[in-house]
This record gives sequence, structure tokens and C-alpha cells, in this order.
Amino acid sequence: MSKPLILVTNDDGILSTGLDPLIRAAEAHGEVWVVAPDSEKSGVSHAITLTEPLRYTQVGQRRFALNGTPVDCVFIGLNHILPRRPDFVFSGVNRGPNLGFDVLYSGTVGAAMEGTIQKVPSAAFSMVSRGSFDFNEIGAAVDSMVARIVLNGVPDGVTLNVNIPDRTIGEFKGFKVTRLGNRQYSNEVLTREDPRGGKYLWVGGTRVTNELSPDSDTGAVAEGWGSISPVSPDLMAHHAVKHLAWANVPDDQE
Amino acid sequence: MSKPLILVTNDDGILSTGLDPLIRAAEAHGEVWVVAPDSEKSGVSHAITLTEPLRYTQVGQRRFALNGTPVDCVFIGLNHILPRRPDFVFSGVNRGPNLGFDVLYSGTVGAAMEGTIQKVPSAAFSMVSRGSFDFNEIGAAVDSMVARIVLNGVPDGVTLNVNIPDRTIGEFKGFKVTRLGNRQYSNEVLTREDPRGGKYLWVGGTRVTNELSPDSDTGAVAEGWGSISPVSPDLMAHHAVKHLAWANVPDDQE
Repeated sequence: MSKPLILVTNDDGILSTGLDPLIRAAEAHGEVWVVAPDSEKSGVSHAITLTEPLRYTQVGQRRFALNGTPVDCVFIGLNHILPRRPDFVFSGVNRGPNLGFDVLYSGTVGAAMEGTIQKVPSAAFSMVSRGSFDFNEIGAAVDSMVARIVLNGVPDGVTLNVNIPDRTIGEFKGFKVTRLGNRQYSNEVLTREDPRGGKYLWVGGTRVTNELSPDSDTGAVAEGWGSISPVSPDLMAHHAVKHLAWANVPDDQE
Repeated sequence: MSKPLILVTNDDGILSTGLDPLIRAAEAHGEVWVVAPDSEKSGVSHAITLTEPLRYTQVGQRRFALNGTPVDCVFIGLNHILPRRPDFVFSGVNRGPNLGFDVLYSGTVGAAMEGTIQKVPSAAFSMVSRGSFDFNEIGAAVDSMVARIVLNGVPDGVTLNVNIPDRTIGEFKGFKVTRLGNRQYSNEVLTREDPRGGKYLWVGGTRVTNELSPDSDTGAVAEGWGSISPVSPDLMAHHAVKHLAWANVPDDQE
């Protein structure tokens, strides 16, 4: 068997130091190719660029910066830049948590989900910190989880969403499998004025309330655990079908 | 009870004629406010703008154009522009289908899901056509489904994803509740050259293979039915937890 091929990407951009621990961890198991956005793309979710042309620049050996979204990086990486289909797609390490509903907005998770859609085992990694974002602090934890994923694989159709706390959160206790916690952001909109008197707005949402149950990712991380939540790109709400009989028109359909 | 307040948005932008049938349908049931992107934002999924300031322009009575994503339009609309929380968020009518995995990439569905996250009953509408995109053709079907949604409501935590075929697909048969079908895009990347010799890429994916089972949205639409699939912003893959025992480290956790 040839050496595994691993695609690493992120949403903080090619210059983010968060790429380093993930590249180092992946290099212990295979040949690593990096295709990452040329600038920060936080919060872009599963956005794909359909109406603008894309360009990439090679910035080192097997290292590429693309003027697109994290999903674009995976799509173009898999289907154009890499020499063959990779064995894994790893996204991150993100500067900041991707817990609870964060995963829907997250470019980090979006990229890993695109790997899953393209049938490549994929995982997203995020660092939870109250301050320094020294990615060296979580290097050993990233190494350990990447090794376990390479060994055990990822269930079909599922993306692993990994969050690792640093010591500002508490002593690292290990990893646990979790569900997405209930994580509520405040809904404020902030109004500002530019130097020429024009009004502009910021999406606020700066205050966060986290569920603290130990089986939730939010709760696990708050206690110093690394969390691993399996997420799926299939948005179908099967449980809701039985409440929608009224939406069948005409009622006598076959 | 005061007149219902309805927020209408889309991802094709404030100038898209696809807004018209949805505004007309909603006006039969309440006061309609429109907050839509100032330019086309197709494929932006659940992207939210966190690193750029947002500005909006009032373009008519209760009509606003925002320099952001569809999700931004719902967030800023609900939390800043509208006089109170709306009773419904309707997104569309999109120029083109949002079937199967499309919903993950879709800005139209992203906007409606943001309504759901904000606890407002929400639905996305898309037009399936092989050609003309004359939105008048589907006006009666939009009217009918909006009336049913206003009457019956939307299950908590669920977004209704409605696709309506025009006569280029066949005779309209009515609506049926569906699941998301298996819809596979080709993965090609197209290489082009600009007038100055620079190479650029297009995300391809122009060839589509659709599941045709009558209970899938792809199959229903192909037969001339309008499809209604309930989708959820909760990405948690509960079924996968049992396959991830290896990810609990140490194993002796409480």
C-alpha cells in the first residue's frame, strides 16, 4: 500500500499558525498536502464559489493558497491539485471553538463536511481557549486524536468534529464522544459610524450561554475534556414528516 | 391580534424577480418586509459575516438591500430593521432547484434555517425549470403553499424546503411531502485563461444525476410534483455515536 495522502485545510487561512499542529500530526501518518484559503474565511459555513473564478498560488512544497472558501479548497484540492484522492481530509486547527450550533456556521466544519460528501474520511479540529491561542499547547492532543482517527477510520457519511481546550480552560482530561450542546448567542446588532459619517452594522452575538451537561460538547469542553461530536451533512428532518400531512395536496396522491 | 409580520429574503439578490411571487403570496396574509442581499449570493450556504461591517440601503417601503449574505439579511432584519419579531420568514423564490444535497450549499435554504434558529417559522421556496424562469408560472402554487403554511404553521426546529416545477418539467400535479433525494454532481474543475495569460478555475459540477424514487424530492419534482422536505439545522449524527467508542480517551471516564 502506498503512503496515505492527507489533505489539510482550514478557514483561518494559509497564514494561520493553527495549521501547524495538524500538519505535524498528519505527517506522522502520510504525505500531507495543504490547500487553504489565502485569507481568513471564518463563518462561511458550507459556502461554495459558483459565480467567481478561482485562482491558487503554490506557496511551498505541497502547499497552496486559494482565493476561495474552505469548501472550495477541498473541492479544488481533491479534484484538481492533489495527485490522487486523499485518504483523509483534516480541517483546522481553528482559532476558537466550534461547539453546538457553531458547526452550522463554521468554515472549518464546512470544509471537513465537503470531504465527507466527497466520500473521504474527514474531521474538523478547533482549539478552545480563553486567551493566548498558543497552538503548541494542544499539539500532543491533536497528535493523539489524529493517530486514533487514522487507525479507526470515520463512519461513512459522518464528519468528526473535534474541540480541544487549552490550559486556560483547565487541566486536559482526555477525549470523550459528545452530542452538540445547546449554545445560544445573544442577538444584538451594533451600530457604528465611519470617519465620513456613514452608518454601518456589526453582527453581534458576542455573549454566549452554553449548556453544561457532561454529555454535550459545550459541557465536556468546559470541564477540560476534548469533545468529539459526529455530525452529518444530511439535513433531512425525518421526525417531522408525520406532522406535515397537511402539506400533501391533493390528499389522494398515490 | 395584530396583522402578521412576514420577512421575505432570498439569495439571488434584491433585484431578482423571484422575490415577486413570494411577496405577493405573503401580502395576502400580513405585512411584508423585504431584506435581501444587494447582489447575487448563490451557494453561500449558512455563511454569516463576522469580519466585515454591514450596510443597508432602503430601496422602497419596507424594502431593504444589505451588502451581506442571506443569513445576514435574516439576522439584521430580525434584530435591527423590523419593528418586531416576524411571524414568518420566507426565502426565495430561488432561480433553480434546491434538492437533495443542494440544501447544504443553498443560500436560500440557509436564510430560512436562520429564521428557524431564531425560533421563527420559516420556509424556503425554489423554482425548478429547464429554461425560462418565468416566475409568474408558479405564482398560484406559491400562493397555495404560503396559505397552507400560514394556516398550519411549521414544526418547531424545522425548516420547510419547497421546490416547485414549472411547465417545462411537466403538468403541475400538486404538492407532496418528500425526503431529500440522492443528487450527485460531477466533480470536474474547469481551467481557463484570462486575457493576460493568467490561469483560473471554475468549480464545475455541471452534470447532475438525480434519484427518481417518488418519495424523494428529486423524484417528485421530476414527475411534476411540488416537493416539501422538512430540514433541520441540527447536524448531530446521533446514529454514529455507537461506532465511536474508540474515541473515548481514557476509557475509564465517568
